[in-house]
Formats: sequence, structure tokens, C-alpha cells
Amino acid sequence: MYVVKSPLSDADLKTVAEALQGALVDLVDLALAAKQIHWNVVGQRFRTVHLQLDEVVDTVRLHSDTVAERASALGVSPDGRAATVAADSGIGPVPGGWVKDSDAVAALVDALGAVITRMRERVTVTAEPDPVSQDILIGITADLEKHHWMFQAENA
Amino acid sequence: MYVVKSPLSDADLKTVAEALQGALVDLVDLALAAKQIHWNVVGQRFRTVHLQLDEVVDTVRLHSDTVAERASALGVSPDGRAATVAADSGIGPVPGGWVKDSDAVAALVDALGAVITRMRERVTVTAEPDPVSQDILIGITADLEKHHWMFQAENA
Amino acid sequence: MYVVKSPLSDADLKTVAEALQGALVDLVDLALAAKQIHWNVVGQRFRTVHLQLDEVVDTVRLHSDTVAERASALGVSPDGRAATVAADSGIGPVPGGWVKDSDAVAALVDALGAVITRMRERVTVTAEPDPVSQDILIGITADLEKHHWMFQAENA
Amino acid sequence: MYVVKSPLSDADLKTVAEALQGALVDLVDLALAAKQIHWNVVGQRFRTVHLQLDEVVDTVRLHSDTVAERASALGVSPDGRAATVAADSGIGPVPGGWVKDSDAVAALVDALGAVITRMRERVTVTAEPDPVSQDILIGITADLEKHHWMFQAENA
Amino acid sequence: MYVVKSPLSDADLKTVAEALQGALVDLVDLALAAKQIHWNVVGQRFRTVHLQLDEVVDTVRLHSDTVAERASALGVSPDGRAATVAADSGIGPVPGGWVKDSDAVAALVDALGAVITRMRERVTVTAEPDPVSQDILIGITADLEKHHWMFQAENA
Amino acid sequence: MYVVKSPLSDADLKTVAEALQGALVDLVDLALAAKQIHWNVVGQRFRTVHLQLDEVVDTVRLHSDTVAERASALGVSPDGRAATVAADSGIGPVPGGWVKDSDAVAALVDALGAVITRMRERVTVTAEPDPVSQDILIGITADLEKHHWMFQAENA
Amino acid sequence: MYVVKSPLSDADLKTVAEALQGALVDLVDLALAAKQIHWNVVGQRFRTVHLQLDEVVDTVRLHSDTVAERASALGVSPDGRAATVAADSGIGPVPGGWVKDSDAVAALVDALGAVITRMRERVTVTAEPDPVSQDILIGITADLEKHHWMFQAENA
Amino acid sequence: MYVVKSPLSDADLKTVAEALQGALVDLVDLALAAKQIHWNVVGQRFRTVHLQLDEVVDTVRLHSDTVAERASALGVSPDGRAATVAADSGIGPVPGGWVKDSDAVAALVDALGAVITRMRERVTVTAEPDPVSQDILIGITADLEKHHWMFQAENA
Amino acid sequence: MYVVKSPLSDADLKTVAEALQGALVDLVDLALAAKQIHWNVVGQRFRTVHLQLDEVVDTVRLHSDTVAERASALGVSPDGRAATVAADSGIGPVPGGWVKDSDAVAALVDALGAVITRMRERVTVTAEPDPVSQDILIGITADLEKHHWMFQAENA
Amino acid sequence: MYVVKSPLSDADLKTVAEALQGALVDLVDLALAAKQIHWNVVGQRFRTVHLQLDEVVDTVRLHSDTVAERASALGVSPDGRAATVAADSGIGPVPGGWVKDSDAVAALVDALGAVITRMRERVTVTAEPDPVSQDILIGITADLEKHHWMFQAENA
Amino acid sequence: MYVVKSPLSDADLKTVAEALQGALVDLVDLALAAKQIHWNVVGQRFRTVHLQLDEVVDTVRLHSDTVAERASALGVSPDGRAATVAADSGIGPVPGGWVKDSDAVAALVDALGAVITRMRERVTVTAEPDPVSQDILIGITADLEKHHWMFQAENA
Amino acid sequence: MYVVKSPLSDADLKTVAEALQGALVDLVDLALAAKQIHWNVVGQRFRTVHLQLDEVVDTVRLHSDTVAERASALGVSPDGRAATVAADSGIGPVPGGWVKDSDAVAALVDALGAVITRMRERVTVTAEPDPVSQDILIGITADLEKHHWMFQAENA
Repeated sequence: MYVVKSPLSDADLKTVAEALQGALVDLVDLALAAKQIHWNVVGQRFRTVHLQLDEVVDTVRLHSDTVAERASALGVSPDGRAATVAADSGIGPVPGGWVKDSDAVAALVDALGAVITRMRERVTVTAEPDPVSQDILIGITADLEKHHWMFQAENA
Repeated sequence: MYVVKSPLSDADLKTVAEALQGALVDLVDLALAAKQIHWNVVGQRFRTVHLQLDEVVDTVRLHSDTVAERASALGVSPDGRAATVAADSGIGPVPGGWVKDSDAVAALVDALGAVITRMRERVTVTAEPDPVSQDILIGITADLEKHHWMFQAENA
Repeated sequence: MYVVKSPLSDADLKTVAEALQGALVDLVDLALAAKQIHWNVVGQRFRTVHLQLDEVVDTVRLHSDTVAERASALGVSPDGRAATVAADSGIGPVPGGWVKDSDAVAALVDALGAVITRMRERVTVTAEPDPVSQDILIGITADLEKHHWMFQAENA
Repeated sequence: MYVVKSPLSDADLKTVAEALQGALVDLVDLALAAKQIHWNVVGQRFRTVHLQLDEVVDTVRLHSDTVAERASALGVSPDGRAATVAADSGIGPVPGGWVKDSDAVAALVDALGAVITRMRERVTVTAEPDPVSQDILIGITADLEKHHWMFQAENA
Repeated sequence: MYVVKSPLSDADLKTVAEALQGALVDLVDLALAAKQIHWNVVGQRFRTVHLQLDEVVDTVRLHSDTVAERASALGVSPDGRAATVAADSGIGPVPGGWVKDSDAVAALVDALGAVITRMRERVTVTAEPDPVSQDILIGITADLEKHHWMFQAENA
Repeated sequence: MYVVKSPLSDADLKTVAEALQGALVDLVDLALAAKQIHWNVVGQRFRTVHLQLDEVVDTVRLHSDTVAERASALGVSPDGRAATVAADSGIGPVPGGWVKDSDAVAALVDALGAVITRMRERVTVTAEPDPVSQDILIGITADLEKHHWMFQAENA
Repeated sequence: MYVVKSPLSDADLKTVAEALQGALVDLVDLALAAKQIHWNVVGQRFRTVHLQLDEVVDTVRLHSDTVAERASALGVSPDGRAATVAADSGIGPVPGGWVKDSDAVAALVDALGAVITRMRERVTVTAEPDPVSQDILIGITADLEKHHWMFQAENA
Repeated sequence: MYVVKSPLSDADLKTVAEALQGALVDLVDLALAAKQIHWNVVGQRFRTVHLQLDEVVDTVRLHSDTVAERASALGVSPDGRAATVAADSGIGPVPGGWVKDSDAVAALVDALGAVITRMRERVTVTAEPDPVSQDILIGITADLEKHHWMFQAENA
Repeated sequence: MYVVKSPLSDADLKTVAEALQGALVDLVDLALAAKQIHWNVVGQRFRTVHLQLDEVVDTVRLHSDTVAERASALGVSPDGRAATVAADSGIGPVPGGWVKDSDAVAALVDALGAVITRMRERVTVTAEPDPVSQDILIGITADLEKHHWMFQAENA
Repeated sequence: MYVVKSPLSDADLKTVAEALQGALVDLVDLALAAKQIHWNVVGQRFRTVHLQLDEVVDTVRLHSDTVAERASALGVSPDGRAATVAADSGIGPVPGGWVKDSDAVAALVDALGAVITRMRERVTVTAEPDPVSQDILIGITADLEKHHWMFQAENA
Repeated sequence: MYVVKSPLSDADLKTVAEALQGALVDLVDLALAAKQIHWNVVGQRFRTVHLQLDEVVDTVRLHSDTVAERASALGVSPDGRAATVAADSGIGPVPGGWVKDSDAVAALVDALGAVITRMRERVTVTAEPDPVSQDILIGITADLEKHHWMFQAENA
Repeated sequence: MYVVKSPLSDADLKTVAEALQGALVDLVDLALAAKQIHWNVVGQRFRTVHLQLDEVVDTVRLHSDTVAERASALGVSPDGRAATVAADSGIGPVPGGWVKDSDAVAALVDALGAVITRMRERVTVTAEPDPVSQDILIGITADLEKHHWMFQAENA
């Protein structure tokens, strides 16, 4: 059914589609992980970490929407369902139960670090086949690396 | 570690905690499902369904936050992680790939219907042990039933 | 034609439907009455009563919309047409022509008083069959009683 | 009691007063009719018609207020009570119960058409006696004819 | 010096210029008079009259600007200087010193009445030579007559 | 296909349709011309003329939309396509390349002057057949004449 | 003097009046206490606690107004004067002078805990006599318990 | 514990500290008194006095915060607790129960008058030791004297 | 009639009243003069001077209101009527007819200079009798001198 | 006349200038075409297509301004006049007269497709000579491809 | 060249000019120092100090603009160039590289303290020659002392 | 101390760090230079240049913050202190004292030109090592070249 007239060749499209689908899953999971810790963090830095995590969530939700709609715009059906996210995410397991503030910060440093590594690979592989998608991924990487810095500075 | 001074007895807390955790999982999954269809819907009603689904997402994300923080306020650690959501959600499987607009509307009717049934049970069981949590669940049910009506009216 | 999947039993639905339809008619008529006096009030307190009545209109129009859509959400067609309102409203006849400010205030005290009495009965009868509808009616009653106090205080 | 110093002669005032009172009744009924269908419309176009009708309601409520206050400004008491509206409105009977979307659009085409015809007559008769009132009626007619076009285009 | 290319004949321009210059002087003086009473009113209705007068000032200042710029647009230099206003205004002398609230309302009824009479004559004489200027004067008259009603209703 | 129920007779409609179509073409071209000079103006007054031209563009785009939708509301299909505009516009050729600021101002004086002349004729011919359309054209003329004055004053 | 027509029986009114008056005193004192610590807190967490306390103040001031006006709406004169608050408040003595941040957080945990206990009793006793007042008290309790959680999490 | 590096000598600081602490207590009590009457006023002027009092509350709450933080900025712990306010306020006893509108206005005239007298003394004594604190007190006095005028004008 | 309880002695009040009344007249005339030139300026700098003058008008209207209400707050009736302004203003005659842009700027330099000189004298004479009024006049002087600089810089 | 100091070599500038001028013409025509169909669309999807087209217009107008000013910033005079647009646009002829909704959607799919193809070529050729211009064209292409997807999804 | 008509004598002007120029340099450097630490702070309090410093920057940038324009208004050319700031600032050397949060807070305490001492001297010396400039410096001092308190409280 | 996990190799990081540090210094100095001229410009174009320079300042301050935080995100401590800026800036000496408007425009053309040249080199050298930083520098260059065009057009 339904076929979008894609501006990319089949080979290019395959590369870009994988990059976008991978980015989507990582970003959706990052939002879920950040919310989980937003609700469960405890400790003296509770309030500041609680607020900071919602800024991560806002940024990441916006980017996941952009990435998914970019896939649709290229004629590729995006998949951001819970089961897919649980199976394919690049983020390691988030701790259950209450989380001490320093552990919360460390968890974000790890999660962001993992996503950034994969996102930079996506920036590299999409450069040739689709500079438009690459530009979107570059913008997302900039934001993630900014949040990454802040959490690292906070646990220094 | 960390213990909040709960205003409820242990038995009441157990009932309320289950209701809130169940509501949280349903609402997080509902947001993921609505976004999935928001990106994948096709057909003549594409635009109107696409926009309507984002209103569902906005409503449901707000409510999931309220429910999770209500659990925390009672001293119960909420769990909204991807794996938990994938495992415990009350919503049936959302179709992958492109979704015809009438199927999209039908999927929402089903998903909302499933969550509403469970939510009404939670309203009943929390009435006695914690009218404060019940009041939150009543407000959520009202919103879900309003969205439910609109999708039903749309497929009439 | 068109049948919404109602979460209520038939008996409960009948009770709730009557309550919502009655509330709708009362609220629509209350808005018309308040506007009528808003245009026709004269006297030293003209400006303050004129402005106060528009606040009543704003509140009441919002609530009438909520009540009508709540009926639709339960699968019951709401009826807010002029003839229905003229026939079924719980508000006594509003005076035609210019209205002296003290009479205007008194008219609102009476109209609000009549609607509040009926609204409290609706709060009582809906408690068991549908706490969701009841919660909406409780919120409306709170607002109406606040306006009622202000007009009473004004004619003291 | 209360007499405003009218800038019009008695004969002119009589003509203008009738035009304004007629316009008021038509506009109040149009708002009630549009709300009625806003709540009761069903079908694939539910959402777009539902939203479109609230734009009609917003426009028409604003204009009914302007017309009523224009009458007051000329010293003529306006009458927008439910019974008056039910008796004098130029709009034919609005269907009760659920309304299929195409019927909803058709009902608005009819209702707007009826009001426009009468409004254009009022524009004509007020030109001489009171260009100020006429200017208000011209502005209202422009808005009604714009809505009329949209509903006609929608059922084309 | 400086000559704007006027779209009107010389005779028409003379008529319109007089109407606009007259309107400008009346409106500037009306704003000064309303401010004067805004500062000097005393009595039980102090606050409501004080606020109402600032609404008159806002309306009238906006209109005086429109009228003056309309004159400029026709190539006629407008004159709104204090001496000109003091000499040519159609408003009778405003009382100095404190003003009792009922006297304040009466003063506004008189001032607005005087300006309205002259403004309606301007509407009549500009109809033929320049419907564009007439349309502006009609809109101003509508606003002034609305304020006139409110102050009359307030002293009823 | 598609026929809107027009409130005008055929003869009147023909007159009004020509006036609206003519106004549409003039306004669309005026916006294009103003943008062209907005981008190409140079000289000491660069910034002020650059900004002023965007105000012209904003005003004129709004009015062109109103005029086109007024035609649609009367059942007449409006035509604002590039070729039509290039062929039928009442504005003389706009200079290509960089434009000295005083020439830019002069070009606007000319373009506005040409459109105003034609717009005033349209105000005259529509008075009888459709005062509603005439009122729209009067409002547009007022705005154009205000801009005309400003550019004339600027080159004085 | 002045008697509002109360919708409650005398016995019910007595119960509800006591609940509302008690809630008012507690909330006014809570706002004063939170401001006191807002000004006097010192330590590494100064800024975050300083800001957090103003959020408590905003919430609590809003609720105290609602509660007092609810009493008025039932015809019961509310008393929120300094002496009454100093005498009847349920909050223990707030420390004078500078307050270390951890002590500040602990003081809020205690103050909120004390008010919540009393507020839950008020929710229970008002359920039968006045569900409208109860609904207001439930909403307040939800907000207080949310703040309570945050301060507890912060000192964990 | 905690010592701020004060820019004032000990003697100057003592004078300024007393002035600021006195101002704080007066302003907190003024807000409580204004709220008390806001809730309890009755009579024809109910609405206007009710609204006017909330403007006093807004002004005064803002100023009390500025004054308290000014004390902290000079290294002096401010005290705005209920007991301190009840004991040290310069405002006479506020009547309990319902308050007739003219009595409400008179009570505000008295309360504001009492605070203004003391505030002017504080302006005088702080001039030499700390023009920064004095400037804050001057601004507060200006606002209080404006409110004082309005209530006096209202009871004239 | 009406006597405000003045916080100043009779002698002090006389000095302050003269300063405020003088300031009021100067500021009202300054606004009229600035508007006059706003409408009549021509030349290459038309737009920038036209806009700049409206900023003067906005500033000055705000200050004239503050000054007049300050007089009222001290129990002195302010007089800002056209005839008073025409007679007592410290601004020299403003040219009638079109004004070349450089002359417009020069006129503002003169007018502002004249008012500033008088305003600085008022700052000096009010220092002792009423620092509250002085503070208001200082703030006004700062704004006037800022505008004065800009017009001087513009004609350099 | 007027020469901007270009940061590009002559050869590079020629390439970039052609790309920007081509993009400008396409975007201006796209806005005209979208507006044309916005006014002329009819059919059941009238409202949704009507609104969607205005979003295209908003996006495209913004981008055309950016592209034209980018040309100016490189010292190249942009040309967006009606005749140039009519002659050089890459969009095929837009149908005149009323347009059925499905045809309207198809027309947009075609027009956007044509512009996207050309825009992607411009992205390629500008990469080397001017990455700054390329970045702007990439952003435009992303937006156009998003709109392209939506219209395709809508006609699926 | 260019001479502003100064309202001060030469001797007074010299004193005031030195005070304003000194204040300008201190404030510009304070903004640069605060930004430097905003970017380089690390440690558990990273986020709160990072945000707090931007509030300092906002305040100080606003004040530096006011001070510089005040100098211009008195006819004195202000100098806020990098070299001047580097040479004349009253703030000691800001540490390069990463800054631990407690050191960051201490650095601000020192920097603010140094500027406050100099600012208070400027308040003293400008009192006689120019109360207008003094009033500006008083307002700045109040803001700086408020920030000073907060950083001191934070390192307590 | 503090080490951020950099996503770049050491060699790449060195290149990118130099580019970012260089950009930071240029942008901070550009803001200082623009403010300096903002305060000191005189001449007929005073107001337009004065306003235009603040737009430069706003743009450049935003970009300097982005660049500094990008350095931090890569683990490189940014240095924007006054002495560093005075020593390393790529902008030539800004004239002290009053600046004639045409000289002001020329100074900006020079300053922007110098920064653009260096910024384009940074775009080139960062392309390979870090496309994320490059993308930020490209966006900044676009903005600077837009401002550069405007000032050049203004002195044409």
C-alpha cells in the first residue's frame, strides 16, 4: 500500500532509514529513562536534578518527533512502539526504585554517552546519501552533547 | 533506603499503589501508541487524525506525570520504563507500518476503551482508601472518555 | 444510528443522562438571562453589574459545553436548542425591558439559587451511578455558589 | 423609566430598532444552533465540523453582543431571552439527536442562508436612518457570508 | 512646501478637511476632559468611574490619532495643539477641582453628547466627497455612542 | 461544478466580481513589488525603508486574502496566479537590480498611487450592487492611502 | 446583619464551617512560615530551597483564598487575621533567625506533615455534609502531599 | 553563625534594621487585613471594594518581600512570623465578621494612614545611614499614599 | 468638600503642589506638541522621527498620569484642562503646518530642554518637603534627559 | 553601483547566485500557487486542505525571504518580481477556477515534488562553493519534504 | 564636535562623569566575569550556580546600558571597550579554566563586594551634583547587594 | 581536575578547540564594540543605527554563549575574560569618543568583515573533525553576513 515518491535511491534510502529508525528508538527510550529518574530521584540535589531531567525530556521528545516524521517524509514507516523500544534501545538498563541523586546524574551521563556515540555514527553514514537527514541528526547531537556536558560537570 | 511518611495504612497503600502503577503503565503506553499512529496514518483524513492524536498525546503525557508523582508522594516508587510498559500495558498490540485512517481511528477507539475499563475499576477501588488519588483518577477518566467519544463519533 | 460504547449500565445511564440534560438546559438559560440583564441594567451600579454578569456568562458557557460533551461521551445526545431551553429551564421568567441595578442583582440571586438547588440534587443522584459526571457537577456547583455569594453580598 | 437621549428621530429609531432586535434574535439562535450541532455531529468529518462550528459560535456571540449594545446605545431595550429567541428566530428547526456530518454542514448552509437574507434587508433599511448601525450590520453580513461560503464549499 | 497627491477634488477636500480637523479637536479635548475627571472624581463610585474614564481616554486617543493621520493622508496638515484645542473644542467647560461622582458622570454625558452631535453631522457631509473618511467617522461615532449609553445608564 | 448561492443578482455580481478580481491582482503585485524593493534597496535610508516595506507587505497580504475570499463567498473563483498577476496588474514595471533609497520611496509612491486610483473606482462602482464588498474596499483604500502619505512625506 | 441563603442544614454547616476555618488558618500560617524560611535560609542549597519555598507560597496563598471564599459562599464569615492565625494554627513554632538549608527542609517537612494530617480529617468529615467543600479540600491535600514528597526526597 | 559582610557601620545598621523590620511587620499585617476585608465585605459596593483590596494585597506582598530581602542583604535576619506580626503591627485591630462596604473603606483608610505615618518616619531616619534602603522605603510610601487617596476619595 | 488627610504640613504642601501642578502642565503640553509634530513631520527622516515621537508621547503620558495622581494623593486637585495647559505651559509655541524633519528634531530639543530646566528646579525645591514626590520627579527627569540626548545626537 | 564585499570567488559566486535565484523564484511561485488553491478548493476536505495550504504559505514565504536576503548578503541582487516568477518558475501550470479537494492535494504533491527535485540539485552544487548557503537550502528542503509527505499521505 | 547641552555645571559634570564611567567599566567586567564562570563552573551545584550567574548577567547588562546612556545624556562619551575594561575594572583577576562550584560562589562574593564598595562611594559623591544620576546608582547598588547576599548565603 | 568524555580524538579536538576559542573572543569583542558605538553614535541616522546595533548585540551575545558552551561540551574550558578579549580579538581598534553615523556604519562593516573572514576559515577547518561544531559556526556566519550586508547597503 501507500508509497511516497522518495528523493533517494534505494541503497541510500536503506542507509538513511536505518539511521533514523535507530535514532528514533534511542530518543524514545531516553525520554522514558529520564522521566523514570525524574520521578524516582532522591537526595539533596533532588529538585535541581528533577527539573533538569524534564528539560532533557522536552528536548528529546521534540527530536524523536522530528526523526520519526523525517522517516515518513522519505517513505519509511517509523516504529516507536513500546516493544520495539524495549528490544532495540542503545541505552543500558535503567535502575528501578528510588535513585540517589549522584547515581541519577551518573545514569544520565551513561545513557547520553551511549546515544551520542551511536548518533555520531549516524551523522557519518548519512552524510553522503542524504545531507538533509544528516543536518537533523547533527542538530540532535549538539543538544545531546550539551546535556551530556552538564551532567558530567555536575558529578565532577 | 528513603522512606516517605505515608498518610495511608499499609493495606490501603497497597491497593492505591497498584492502581497508580497500573494507570501509569497504561498511560505511558497510550502515549507511545498514539504517537506511533500519528506518524504512520495515511488516507484522506490524514491531517485531522494526525492532529487529533497529538492532543491525545498531550493529555496523556500530563496525566502520566501526575499519576507517577502521586505514587512518589505516597512513598511508592513508580515504574514507567520501556520494558515494564511493554510487559504490563493494558493496550492490545498496535499495528506496525502504515495505518489507513479508518483503522487508525478504530485502533484508538479500542485502546482508549481498554484503558477506560481498567481506569474505572481503579476509581472504584481507591474511593475508600484514598479519595485524593481517586479524585486524580476520576479527572483522567473524564478526559479519556471525552477522547473516546470523539474517535467513536468519527468512525460512525 | 450511531451508538457509543457506554461504560454505564442502562439504569445508571438513564439517571445520569437526565441529570446532565437538566444541567445543560439550566446553564444555557442562565447564560441567556445573564446576557439579557447585562444589556438592560441601569442605575448607579451599572458598570460593576454589567462587568460581573459577563463573568457569569463566561463561567456558565464553559460549563454548559462541558456538560453537553459529557452527555455525548456517555452516548446520550444533548439538547440545548432554544425551544428546549425555553420549555425546560429551571429559571423563572427574566424581566423584559430596562432593569434597575438592585433588581438585576436580585434577579441573579434568584436565578442562581434556583439552579444551585437543582444542581445539588444532581450531585446526589449521580454519586453512585457515575462519579465522573458527579465530579463535573460538583465543580460547577462550586462556581455557581461563589457567584451566588457575590450577588447576595452585593444586595446586603 | 430611564430614557437615553437618542440621536435619531422617532421614525428612524423605529426602523433601526426593529432591524437590531431582529438581528439579535437571529444571531443568538444561530449560536445555539451551531452549538447543538457541535455536540451532536457524527461521521468521518466529525472533528473538522466540530471545530468549524465553534468558530461560528465565537463570531456570532461577539456580533450578538455588539448588536444588543447598539440597541441600548440608541435607547432601545434589546430582548435576547430564550422564549423570545424560540418564538422570533428566522432559522428553521434544527434537528434533534445525532446529526450525520453532511447533514450538519447542510443545516449550517440553510441556517446561515436564512439569516443572511434577512440581514441584507436590514442593511438596506438602515442605510438612510442610521449609517452607524448599518455599518455594524454590514460587518456582520460579511462574516456570515464568509462562513456560508465555507460550508457550501465543504458540501460541494 | 510639501504637497501630497490628493485623491479628492479641491471642493471635496475642503469639506472633508474641515470635518477631520473638527473631529480632531473634539477628540483631543475629550481625552483631556476625561483625564481631568479621572484624577478629580470623588464619591462612592470613585473607583468604577475612575476606571471607566481611562477606557474613554484609550478609545479617544486612538481615534484622534487615526483622524489626524487621515488628514495628513489627504495632504491636509492637522492641528492638535493646546491653544487650538482650547479655542475650537465643541465641549463645554469642564469643572475645575474635585468632582462628585454623579457630577462626573453627568459631565461625561454632556461632553459625549456634544461631540456625537457634531460627529454625526460630519458623517453626513463626508458621505459624498470621501466615503473613506466617512467610514472612519462612522466607526468613531459608534464607539462614542456606546460610551454615551453607559454613562447615561449609570446616572439613571 | 460547485455553485455558491449568491446573494446578488447576475448583473450586480458581474460588477462586483470584476472589482474584486482587479483588486486581488493589484494587491498581490503590490506585495511582490514591495518585497522586491525590500531586498534591493541601498543607501543611507536602507534600514528604515527596508522595515517600512515589510509593513506594506503585511498589510497588503492580509487584504489580498480578504478580497480573494470575498470573491469566493460570492461564488466567484478568484485568480491570483503569477501569470495573471504579471499580465493584469495596475502597477507599472518595478526596476530590477539594486535600488537607491530615494528611488525606492518614489517607486512606492507611484505603485500605491496607481492602485489607489483604481481602488477608489471600485469603491464607487460597488456601492450600489454590494455595500458589503464596498465596505471591504473602503477599508483597504484607507490603509493604502496611509502608506501613500508616509512615502510621500519621506521624499518631501 | 447579612445572611446568605445556605444550601446546607445548620448541623452540616457547623461541621463544614469548622473544617474551612481550620484549613484557612493552617494555610495562611503555612504561607507565612514558608516566606520566613525563604528569607532566612542559608547554606549550599540556598538558591534551590529559596525558589522552592516561593512555589509553596504561591500554591498555598491561592488555596487559602479559595477556602476563605468557600466559607463566605456558605454564609460563614472567615477569619484570617494575624492574631487568629497566631493563636489557632496547626503548625509548630518556626525557628527565628538564619536557618541552615537542611533545617529549612526539615521544617517544611514537619509543617506540611502537620497540615496534611488535619486536612485529611477535614476531607473525611465534610464528605457527607458537603461534597462541594470536600472536593476543594481534596485538591488542596493533593498539592500539599506533592510538596511534602519533594521536601522529604530532598532530605533523604 | 552566618555573617554577611555588611556595607554599613554597626550604628547605621541598627537604625536601618529597625526600620526594615518595622516596615516588614506593617506590610505583612496590611496584606492580612486587606485579605480579611476582601472576604468579608458586604454592601452595594461589594464588588469594587473586593477587587480594589486584592490590588492592595498584590502591591503590599511584593513590597514586604523586597523589604525582607533587603534586610537579609544587609545581614539582618527578618522576622515575618504570625506571632511577631500579631504582636508588633502598627495597624489597629481589624473588625471580625461581615463588614459593611463603607466600614471596609474606612478601615483601609485607617490602616493605610497608620502605616504611612510610620513609613515616613523610616524614610527620614534611613536617609543618612543608607540611601539604598531609603529609596526602597520611598517607593513603598508612594504606593501606599496612592491607595490611601483612592479609599479616601471613595468615602468622600 | 472632600479633604484628604495630607502627610505634609501646609507650607510643605504648598511648595510640592506647585511643583506637581507645574510638572503636569508641562508634560501634558509636551505630549500634545510631540503628537502635533508626529503628524506633521516631512522629510527623509520622516519615519524614524515619526516613530521616535510616539515613544516620547508614551513616556510623557505615563508620567503626566503619575504626577496628577500624586497631587491627588496629597489632597491637591490637579488641573490638566486644555485652557490651563494652553495658558501655563513652559514650552514655547509649536509651529503649525508641515514641519521639515530637522526642524522637528530641533523643536523637540527645545521643548525638552525647557521642560528639563523647570523639572530640575522642582527636584530641588521638593527635596526637603517631600522626598516621595521628589523621587517621582527625579525619575521623570531621567527619562526626559534621555530623550533630550537622542534628539540632540540626531541633529549633530 | 553598490558593491558588497563578497566572501566568495567569482566562480563560486556565480554557482551560488544561480542556485539562490532559482530557489527564490520557485518559492515565490509555490506561495502564489498554494494561496490560489487555498481560495479555490471545494469538497468534503475543504477546511482541512484550506488550513493546511496556509501552513505551506507561511513556511514558504519565510524561506523565500531568507533566500533573497542571502543573495543580497553575497552581493547578488535577487529578483522576485511577478514577471520573473511567471517566466522562470519550476512549478507547472496551476489549474484556474474551483479545484476539487483531491485535485488540490494532487496539485500540491506535484508542485512540491518539482521544487524538491530542483532544491536537492542546488544543495549538491552549493556544497563546495558556499556551505553557508547550502545549509539554508538544506533546511528549506527538509520543510518542503515534510509538507510533501503530508499531502502524499492525504491522497493515499 | 557634537556637544550636548548639559544641565550640570562643569565641576559637577566632572564628578558625575567619573562616577558613571567607573560604574560602566565595573558593570561590563562583572558581566564578562559572570559569563566566564557560568561556562566553567563544575561540581554538584553546577546547575544552580550556572543559572544564578545568568541572572547576574541579565541584571548587570541592563544596568551597564543605563549607566552608559546616562553619561551620553549628560554629554559625556562613555567608554566600554575591551581594552578599557581590562585596564580599569575594579574586579580582581577571575580564575581561568574550570572552577569548582564553591570557588565560583566565592569569586562572585568577592567581585560583587568590590563593585559594591566603589558603587556606594559613587552614590555619595553624586548626591549633590546630580540627584538624577545618584538615583540610578542607588537602584544598581540595591540589585548588586541583593545578589551579594544570595552568594554569601550560598557559601555559608 | 574535571574531565569530560570527549567524542573527538585529541588531534581533532585541538583543531576544534582553537576554532571555538577564536570564535568566542571575536564574538565577545564584537558585542562590546557594537555597544560602544550604540552609545556614542551621533548624526542624522543616530536612531536607526542605535537600534540596529542592539540587534547585532543580541545576535552576537546569543552566539557567543552557544560557542562557549560548545567548547565546554567538548571538555575544553572557554576563555571570554576581558584581558583575553582585549589581547586576542580579530577586530581592529574601535574609535573612542563620539562617532559620526557614517563612520559608525563603516566601523561595523570593517569589524563584521574581519570576523567573517576568520569565521569562514573556522568553518573550513572544523568540517572534517567535528561537523557538529561546524554546523554551529555555519549558522553564526550566516547571521554575521546578513548584518554585514545591511551595514554595507546603508553606506552605499
